[in-house]
Parts: sequence; C-alpha cells; structure tokens
Amino acid sequence: MKLGTVERPDGSAVVVEVADEQAAVLPYPDLDHLVADPDWRQAAETAADRGERIAVADLAWLPPVRRPGKVLCVALNNSANPDRIISGPDTPAMFPEPSSALVGHRRPIRLKDAYGRVHPEPELAVVIGTGGADIAVADAPDHVLGYTIFNDLTSPTMRQTDTFHYRAIHPDAEDPAGVRYVESWVSYPARYKGADTFGPLGPWMTTSGDIPDPHALRITCSHDGRVVTDDSTANLRFSVAEVIAFASGYLTLEPGDVIAMGTALKASAQGGAVQNVDLNTLGGTIEVAIEGIGVLSNPVHRR
Amino acid sequence: MKLGTVERPDGSAVVVEVADEQAAVLPYPDLDHLVADPDWRQAAETAADRGERIAVADLAWLPPVRRPGKVLCVALNNSANPDRIISGPDTPAMFPEPSSALVGHRRPIRLKDAYGRVHPEPELAVVIGTGGADIAVADAPDHVLGYTIFNDLTSPTMRQTDTFHYRAIHPDAEDPAGVRYVESWVSYPARYKGADTFGPLGPWMTTSGDIPDPHALRITCSHDGRVVTDDSTANLRFSVAEVIAFASGYLTLEPGDVIAMGTALKASAQGGAVQNVDLNTLGGTIEVAIEGIGVLSNPVHRR
Repeated sequence: MKLGTVERPDGSAVVVEVADEQAAVLPYPDLDHLVADPDWRQAAETAADRGERIAVADLAWLPPVRRPGKVLCVALNNSANPDRIISGPDTPAMFPEPSSALVGHRRPIRLKDAYGRVHPEPELAVVIGTGGADIAVADAPDHVLGYTIFNDLTSPTMRQTDTFHYRAIHPDAEDPAGVRYVESWVSYPARYKGADTFGPLGPWMTTSGDIPDPHALRITCSHDGRVVTDDSTANLRFSVAEVIAFASGYLTLEPGDVIAMGTALKASAQGGAVQNVDLNTLGGTIEVAIEGIGVLSNPVHRR
Repeated sequence: MKLGTVERPDGSAVVVEVADEQAAVLPYPDLDHLVADPDWRQAAETAADRGERIAVADLAWLPPVRRPGKVLCVALNNSANPDRIISGPDTPAMFPEPSSALVGHRRPIRLKDAYGRVHPEPELAVVIGTGGADIAVADAPDHVLGYTIFNDLTSPTMRQTDTFHYRAIHPDAEDPAGVRYVESWVSYPARYKGADTFGPLGPWMTTSGDIPDPHALRITCSHDGRVVTDDSTANLRFSVAEVIAFASGYLTLEPGDVIAMGTALKASAQGGAVQNVDLNTLGGTIEVAIEGIGVLSNPVHRR
C-alpha cells in the first residue's frame, strides 16, 4: 500500500494509491494523524473501496509526515565510506533535522547566495509506526510503518563555516576542581543540513508489508535527467533494524518519527558525484528514485 | 506573567502564576496550543481572575512547550569562549535538539552507563510566539513569547565517539566530473545532546513584557546545593535579537520553537566548572536558576 499527504482546498489529507493512476482520500490530515489511529488500515481499505478519488497527476504533494517529532539522519552509512574515515565510531552516527526543513514532492528547493554550495544526497527513509525505547534488533521491523524517499540537501560551505577547531574543557584527572583544555573539533548541523527546503520527502510512503527487504532496492539520483548516483540499499553499512535498535537505546522513537538511512554514494556508469552537483550554481531539477517507492522530484528556485 | 504546563489527572494544562503561591488553570493543554490562539492573553486574564486554582507546590510540571517544531541550541555563545576557539565562525553556530529529549521540572534525568560522562549546561531559552523568516534584528523582540530555563545536558563521551576525522568529498576545480578528498572533522549531536531527558526545560516561562532586558539576568547552576556556575546573560556573545535574526535567515521560526542561547560558563566564587559535574558518576540533583524566571531542578536517576 502506498500512502501520501496532499494539499486540498480545505486543508491537507492522506491519500492511498488505487488502480488506474488514481488516489483515494482518507479521513486524516496527514500521516502524523493516521499513525495515531490503530484502525488506520481499515480506514484505508474503506477509502480505497469507496472514497473520493483524485488523479495522481493532479495531487499537490506535502511531506507524507508533516511535523515528525524528529527526523534522525544517519551519517556516513554507505559501504563506500570506510576508506574515507580516518578515525570515528563503529556505531551509527546521527544528527537531527528540524521538521521545518521538510518539503513535498515537486515543491521548490529555495536557495540563497548565503548558502554557498548545496548538493543533493539520495536516501532511503523509514517512517516509525510504533514508538519505543531500547528496541531489540529482532523486534525493530515491527516498529516500521513504511519507507519513503529523502533528499538530504547539504551545504558543505555552511558545514565548513560551522565547524570549529577549539579547546574542549575536560576535568583534570589530578585535580577534582580543575580543568584542562583538549584540542578538539566540533561541527553544528542546524544550517548546513536543516535550512528551509533542505529536506524534500515523499511523495509516497510504501507500507512495510510491501517492502519485504529494504536492503535490496535500487536508488538513483538524477540532475536534469542525468543519472549521477546509481546505488542499492544493499550498500548500507548499518541496516534499518540495527539503526532503529541503536537509536532507540538513546532517543525514544515516537510514531511518525523519520529515520533517514544515509546517503547512497555509488556513482552512475557515466560517473559523477553528488558533491559535483551544486544546485545553487546549476539550478534545474533534482530527482531521487527508489525501487518500489517512487520518484521524488524538486525544482531549484532562488530565494 | 508566568506560564507553565502541568500534568492533570485528565491530561495536561497551561497554568498562570497568581498571588499566594497559587496557579490558575487555562483552557489549553500546553503552550504549544496557547501560542496558536491570538486571544490567549484574554484567556489568561480570565483564568487568573476566576479559574480553578492549584498550589504551585502541588504542580506536576511538564516542559512548558511539549513538542516544539524545533529546539535550536546556540553553541559557544559565552564571552568566556573566544580564548577557546582556535578557528571557527563569527556567526551563531547552532544545532537542533529533538523534542523527545525534553523533560519538565523535578522529573528525573535518567542516565545509562553507555552515556559515559554527562554534565549540565545552564542556559536561557527563548520561546517564539510569532514565527517568521528573514526577521530583522530590530523586529526580533516582537517574535518572543517569553523566556524559560534550559539545562542542555551534554555527554562529552558520546561527543568524542560521534566525532569523525574523515576525508570530505569536494569538487575538483580542474575536472568538472572529478572529486578530491579534503581531510576534515565532523561531529554529530543526536546522542550527545539529544538523548532522552537531556533537555530539562521550565518550570515557568516568563512572558517577554516582564523581562525588559534578557541580557541582565543572573544565571546560576548548582549541584546538590553547591553553586558551580554564577554568570549573567550579559555575557552572551550574540544577543537574543541577533540570534533570532540570524537563525530566521536560514530556518523559518515557528510559534512554540525554542532557542537555547548557549551555556553560561563563568565559574562561581567557590570555583568549579560544569564539566567537572559528571552526573552519571555523582548522581544527586542539578538546578539552574535564572533571575526573574525561576529555578529548574532535576534529580538524577539510573536507567
């Protein structure tokens, strides 16, 4: 089953994909509300059977989850990455992204000069259905509502500006009241990952029952029709279940939370790297496609 | 006017402080909902006049804003910091914190062995009343609903684990399709700043009209009654208005958003540093007090 959230003249609504390129309207404003109703599957079946229909081509897409409690993004989670890591953790590294960054399918990515370079990052995203803390790896799949597509736009210019070489304050082992300075580096992601429109999400979320293996999906990224990335979710280093289990040991997961699994990095046969696609210079349209889910397409506008 | 959110037998409710250490109940479940009602001031006056009353001592506190769209935290924003910065930006550096990390006054901070060292960070927090993008510094005060207290718990152990020395991918200036590796550092804050209960907030939010100057407030942090930090918001490097203006140029601010202004660092006369207060080893009770707002106190439990 494929579900999405769209804008209607009288507010927003959840839609379910039905035959003949049509969608049927469900009685929820968004997936945030659907996920709170234990009987949502029945409502979806009723809607598919006799709900109001709209042509998919006419849908005005919003992010499927409009205001998730959190968007957790996993960093450096592609098999291409180990060569790049000089020192770092052997557990999933994560950062949160604010819901204000999310935009729906076909909505413009709005960029300013001040953002500097901005490149796309194609990612599989998990929508949590059942929340929880300290979830076991074996139980993790039961917590997934479905899978959608995320374009984790990144400004390496703002990342560089918001990275500090500094002296961290640590306790002094020889003096309980004393401190010592330790040279460290730290970076802060609010702007370089979380600026407005840096989080295209959708259009569809495919429910987990229709994605038997989330680690066998082709994922591509194209700029103005040129395929830049041609990868598979098989190349994710930590699996969906491992990330859910690990994350929930620190941050309680809530229904509607989104977990972005990390960038698909493998260049297409034509070559290229997403880091070469500076949307702030090139403009155009950026698309991420994932097998079994759909295509997320966004034009670039200037703000 | 002082407002807060508390737990009631039938759900949560906003309360307003009235005379004789009493609070009166308002018809909103939390400040998230109050801020959406343009007539909230009238509702507060009516409640103060003839609403149900509860002794402040009996209130079961929740975070005043329960599920803000975003909690934006400003890093390294104390006048004590310039000596510590070897290289970094001259604009506010910010990271988001998930709403799932927030806990109310008197609720336990729940720590696990896996968190390693965990220290407090006393901070002034701004609650946004009127949202906006590209807000001018001169207009920024009009966007503030009020001020509250934030304890930005931090695990330097997890920060170290989630800091990478790695090779960033950059475009190759001499080959449009090529890339080059640039040695960089990056750190990811989801766990070290955003773990469950790492965000005590409240108890009261003092409305902005009652805080004529947010940069003239004494701020202290005490562990088991011993004053560790004794600072003033006068020592904030970037002002509330400057941070609102800067942040809103990148991330649209929404009603109910929380901006934590950065750690008060000045040690008390007795000496000491918050970095020496490892709550995971010491346990006890940690308190942050800000003049004109109140005292935020949380016991430390083991999870």
